[in-house]
Amino acid sequence: MGFEEKTMKTEKIYEGKILNLRIDMVELPDKKYSKREIVEHPGAVAIAALTDDNEIILVKQYRKAVEKELVEIPAGMLEISEEPREAAVRELKEETGFSADKMEYICEFYTSPGFTNEKLYLFLATGLKAGESHPENDEYIDVLKFKLDNLVDMVWKGQILDSKTIIGAFAVSSYLQNKR
Amino acid sequence: MGFEEKTMKTEKIYEGKILNLRIDMVELPDKKYSKREIVEHPGAVAIAALTDDNEIILVKQYRKAVEKELVEIPAGMLEISEEPREAAVRELKEETGFSADKMEYICEFYTSPGFTNEKLYLFLATGLKAGESHPENDEYIDVLKFKLDNLVDMVWKGQILDSKTIIGAFAVSSYLQNKR
Repeated sequence: MGFEEKTMKTEKIYEGKILNLRIDMVELPDKKYSKREIVEHPGAVAIAALTDDNEIILVKQYRKAVEKELVEIPAGMLEISEEPREAAVRELKEETGFSADKMEYICEFYTSPGFTNEKLYLFLATGLKAGESHPENDEYIDVLKFKLDNLVDMVWKGQILDSKTIIGAFAVSSYLQNKR
Repeated sequence: MGFEEKTMKTEKIYEGKILNLRIDMVELPDKKYSKREIVEHPGAVAIAALTDDNEIILVKQYRKAVEKELVEIPAGMLEISEEPREAAVRELKEETGFSADKMEYICEFYTSPGFTNEKLYLFLATGLKAGESHPENDEYIDVLKFKLDNLVDMVWKGQILDSKTIIGAFAVSSYLQNKR
């Protein structure tokens, strides 16, 4: 039947630029109590952008949290009161310069629901037109292209280490197969 | 050719039970500076456990961070100096009671590298034997089973909202197809 963890007390630890941290004291069944450390995040979008030649647009950037460069599909945080589809159009343009005739919703998911409410909306962009990119002030991004089939191989070879990009590779392959 | 963001200053904000928060001041190209808010996490394992009848074992639990019950593959954090495979065996047993003849490494990924170093190791468990579960004190878990094909359908229907479970569904389907 399921139950809910009722919040007995909440404590704000930090309010930042891209995330907040709070601790909730929750009530469990049988009057037990536990602490939940929760990272509040505004949510994000990611875009699997597919060229007419079946190539996926990828971005390579240094990720300080993991202390290495990662190859990922373009992505970015939702701005205040921004719709996911709008954000997908904006982020694709900013990071890669591409605009898309078609921006299809694929799926949405929580990246790590054990400690954060970050939700990510995944889109498939097609009918691409190249243009000028406008990365944010603190973003240094290389734009790459790989065949969709090669991207799935790269997952198996351990060359793609980012969860949204792995989901993008599998989900878009499966979506396109089912459509055909 | 890629660059690194050099840490100029680091500030610990919080040290907790399952995560720490710190802020790094980093140097970018052209002597620009930026702040990176980083959630430190010990890493985790997730287990796609497949019965002889091609059913995947799932757990349903309330996730305070997202304020709802989610259906996920079993998972848990790495303990200090624990190998991922050991942790996978332990977590599968604790959360579901199942032990496995075979625990195969499938892939690994960062859940959300924009702000956390959390890395997740995914395993495929087969040759399952049922036993008694031993969830942690603050875990309330229902164990469910779904056919692997149905799990992929559930992703498309928006019934699976957890990234590791989506990767598990697609990756294990693809892995088993390639093996045949």
